[in-house]
Amino acid sequence: MTIGGHHNKLEELFNKSDVKLGDSVIVETNNATHIGILIPRYEYADDNHLVLKLKNGYNIGINLGKIKSIKKMIEKSDATNKSNIDYNYRDNFSYENMDQNLSQSQLPNLSLLSTGGTISSKIDYRTGGVMAALTAKELNDSIPELMKIANIDPEVILTEYSENIKPEHWSLIAKKIANNILSGKYEGIIVSHGTDTMHYTSAALSFALQNLPIPVVLVGAQRSSDRPSSDASLNLIGACTFATKSKFSGVFVAMHYSISDDVIACHIGTRVRKNHTSRRDAFHSIDVYPFSLIKKDQIKIPNQYTDLIFQERNKNFEDMIVRPNFENKVSLLKFYPGFDCRMFDYCIKLGHKAIILEGTGLGHINKECFSQIKNAIDNGILIFMTSQCIWGRIALTVYDTGRDLLNLGVIPLSNTTSETALVKAMWCLGNFNEEKDVIKTMTTNIANEFTNRIPVE
Amino acid sequence: MTIGGHHNKLEELFNKSDVKLGDSVIVETNNATHIGILIPRYEYADDNHLVLKLKNGYNIGINLGKIKSIKKMIEKSDATNKSNIDYNYRDNFSYENMDQNLSQSQLPNLSLLSTGGTISSKIDYRTGGVMAALTAKELNDSIPELMKIANIDPEVILTEYSENIKPEHWSLIAKKIANNILSGKYEGIIVSHGTDTMHYTSAALSFALQNLPIPVVLVGAQRSSDRPSSDASLNLIGACTFATKSKFSGVFVAMHYSISDDVIACHIGTRVRKNHTSRRDAFHSIDVYPFSLIKKDQIKIPNQYTDLIFQERNKNFEDMIVRPNFENKVSLLKFYPGFDCRMFDYCIKLGHKAIILEGTGLGHINKECFSQIKNAIDNGILIFMTSQCIWGRIALTVYDTGRDLLNLGVIPLSNTTSETALVKAMWCLGNFNEEKDVIKTMTTNIANEFTNRIPVE
Repeated sequence: MTIGGHHNKLEELFNKSDVKLGDSVIVETNNATHIGILIPRYEYADDNHLVLKLKNGYNIGINLGKIKSIKKMIEKSDATNKSNIDYNYRDNFSYENMDQNLSQSQLPNLSLLSTGGTISSKIDYRTGGVMAALTAKELNDSIPELMKIANIDPEVILTEYSENIKPEHWSLIAKKIANNILSGKYEGIIVSHGTDTMHYTSAALSFALQNLPIPVVLVGAQRSSDRPSSDASLNLIGACTFATKSKFSGVFVAMHYSISDDVIACHIGTRVRKNHTSRRDAFHSIDVYPFSLIKKDQIKIPNQYTDLIFQERNKNFEDMIVRPNFENKVSLLKFYPGFDCRMFDYCIKLGHKAIILEGTGLGHINKECFSQIKNAIDNGILIFMTSQCIWGRIALTVYDTGRDLLNLGVIPLSNTTSETALVKAMWCLGNFNEEKDVIKTMTTNIANEFTNRIPVE
Repeated sequence: MTIGGHHNKLEELFNKSDVKLGDSVIVETNNATHIGILIPRYEYADDNHLVLKLKNGYNIGINLGKIKSIKKMIEKSDATNKSNIDYNYRDNFSYENMDQNLSQSQLPNLSLLSTGGTISSKIDYRTGGVMAALTAKELNDSIPELMKIANIDPEVILTEYSENIKPEHWSLIAKKIANNILSGKYEGIIVSHGTDTMHYTSAALSFALQNLPIPVVLVGAQRSSDRPSSDASLNLIGACTFATKSKFSGVFVAMHYSISDDVIACHIGTRVRKNHTSRRDAFHSIDVYPFSLIKKDQIKIPNQYTDLIFQERNKNFEDMIVRPNFENKVSLLKFYPGFDCRMFDYCIKLGHKAIILEGTGLGHINKECFSQIKNAIDNGILIFMTSQCIWGRIALTVYDTGRDLLNLGVIPLSNTTSETALVKAMWCLGNFNEEKDVIKTMTTNIANEFTNRIPVE
C-alpha cells in the first residue's frame, strides 16, 4: 500500500505527524529545517526518502532516518514577497486582466500531449542516467498546482527523446493537435517535448497549423521531473497558465526566463532557440523579446509588437489551416573555412530538393564554392541563405560575395533562423508542388519567421 | 593637389576658414551644427564632401554646398564626461597601471598585418557596395589617434574577405606573425581581418602559436573604414592599446563591447564567436567574460580567471612554439531533425579524417544514425561532439543517447565551441601523425578551449 507513491515507512510517519500529501510542512532534520509542500514520489522510487517541494521551486529528497519531526504549518500570504528577477523589459509590458478564483467546475480544459523528453523522464537508479518513461498522467499527478489552473486531459502520443523526433513526428503531432482543437473541448493545447529539438518542432507546428483558434504551447524541462531542482513543474505551470489565460492564439514555447524559479518566458514558435546545453533559461527569443512573461497567474505582454502576426483567441475552428506534410529531402549545410565544396555535389546525389546554407556574417561563403552552387541550382536544388551568427539579418547586397551569390540564384531569408528555415523548407516542399510557390512561400512571412523590427538594433 | 585626400574645393574652404586636418571644428550647415575633428578622405572619394569625426566616434560626410561656416574650436577637457556604458562586470574588474604621456620616440612599436575584410574596405561609389581595397598604410593614415599609441609598421599580407580565408591562409598568417615576433622589434602584433571568420582565425592562431612572448590581437570592423559610423577606428585604437599595454600575451580578438562607441572588449582567441550579422558588438565571449575591457587608455581585467591559461609578456622568444600546419580534411556536420545519415558515408568517401558533430543539447543525435557513425569510426574517422546550443557543456553520461554515443567511440569536447573544435582538429591532424596523439591533444586544454568554470552557471 502506498500514499501517492510514498511507501509504508512514510505512511507511518505521516500518520504519526498528522500530515498528508499537499500539506505545507516544517521538517526538522539533524542538520537543518526545511519548509515546503509534501509531494508524491513515483512508485518505483525508493522508500527511504520523502519529497518536499521548496518555495523556490526545487524539490528535495529527505532521508527518513534523519527526520526528527514533521509539523503542519499555516502559510502566510506571500503577497509581499519581492521577486529577485530583473525585468529587463518591465516598461514595455502591460498586464492582461485575469479572472481569479475560479472554482474547480469552472476551470478551463486543457489537452496535454506528451511526446517524451526530459520533462517526462525519470532517473534510472540502476545506471544513474535519465530515461524517458513518465506518462503524461504521472506528470500531471506529480504537480498538484496544475489542478488549480485547469482540468487537464493527459495523453501520451510519443515517447521519444527529442533528438529522435523527425519530420514525420511533426506531422503526427500536428494532426493530433488539430483533432483535439476540433473536438471543441479545450481552451488550449500543451505539448510536452524534449528540449533538444523543441524549437524545430515549434517552428514545424507554426507552419503546419495556421489561424489557430486557441494557443498551442510546447514545454520541456532541462532536468527530469523526479529530480530535485527539476524545472518541469514551473515550466508546466507557466505553460498551462498561458494556455488558459492568454487572449492570443498561436504556437509558443514556455520555459524558464532566468535561472530563478519564478518567471516563465513564452516564446514565439518560429523565433526561439535552445542556446545553452544545461541551464534552465536555455531558450532565447532571437531578434525579438519573448512574446510574454508569466509570473504566478499574471501574463505580461510587450507593447511594441504591433508588426507581429497574431490573432486573438476565437471560435472560428473552420478557419484553421492544417497542412501537416513535411518533405525530408532538405539539407542544412553550415559553412566554415576549409568547407569541402563537394558537399553541394553530394546533395544532388542524395536527391535533395533544397539546401539551407548557413553562411558567415551577412550570408557569405567561400567564392571557391560558387561553381558547385551554380551546379546545384542548375540541377533544380533551391538554395536559401541564413547566417550562423544566429542574431541579425542576411544582406546579400552589401558585399561583392553577396551580390555574386544573388546572381547565382541564392535566395536570402532575412532574419529567419537556420533551424526555422530548414523546417519551413521541409514544410513548403511537403505542401507545394510548384517551385515558384515554394520560393514565394519561403520569402513570405507566415508565422513571424521574418520580423521587421529588431529591438535594440 | 589634395589635402590628405581632400580636394581643391576643400582646400579653398580650409584656407578661407583657417582650419586644417586634425583641427577640432564647429561646422554650421543650413540645418545643423556639427562638432568634430576634420579627418582626411581617401583620394578616390568625391570632392563634394568633407569628413568630420564626431565625438561619439561616428564619421559623417558633409556636403560642401550646405556648409555656411567652419570655425576652429578649443575643446574642453572631457574628463568629467560620463560613459553611458553599463559595465555588467564592473565589480569583477581591476585596473592595470598605465604609463601615461609617453613622447613619440618612446612609443612602443607594433606590427599591423592586414589580411583584408571590411576594416580595410571602401565603398564602391559605382555599385554602392563594399569592396576590399584599403591598404594597412591607408588605414593607419586615416586614424590619426593611432600615432599617439604606438609607432605602427603596416604591412599587407592578404586582401581577402574573411569568408575566403582558408586553413592555408592561417598557416601563412601564423608564419608571418612568428617572423615579426622573432625580429624583436615589436611590443605586439595587430592582425586586421574580416569579421565573418575572424573567430576561426583567432582559434587557429591560438593553436599554431603557443607560448607567445607578446600579444597578438585580431581586429575587424562591421562597417567599412571610409563610411560614416564605421567602427574600425575605435576597434583599432582598442586593439593597439591592448597590444602595447597589456601585461599578458596570447591571441585575442578586439571589437566593440556594446553599440556605444566607447568600450572595446578583448576576447580570448578560442572562446569568441560572431553572434550578430551587423551589430558593432557582434562578437561575444562564450562561457567566459571577455578577457578585458578597454576604455581610452585603461585596461580592465577580470579577477576571476585564475584557472585560465595565460602568461605574462616576456622576452623568451626561444620558448615560442610555432606549429603552423593545418589539415583540411575535417568536416563540421550540424545535426537536425530529418538529417540524412548518409552524410557520414560521404565523409568517408571524401577521405576526411575527422568529423566535428554539432549535436543537439548535451551532445545528441538521432539514434538512426548510430550505424553510420559506427561505420565512419570503423573506417578510421575520428568523431568529436560539440553542441549547436553554443553555450554550455557537452555531457554524454546523462542520457541513454549520450552513453550509446560514448560506447560507439564518439569523443565529447566539453565546452569547446564548434568553430574552435573544427580548427583544433584541423591543427591536430596537420601536426600529429599518430591517432592517439590527435585524440590526446583534442581532449587536452591547450589555449582555453576548455574552461573549468562557467560564470553565472
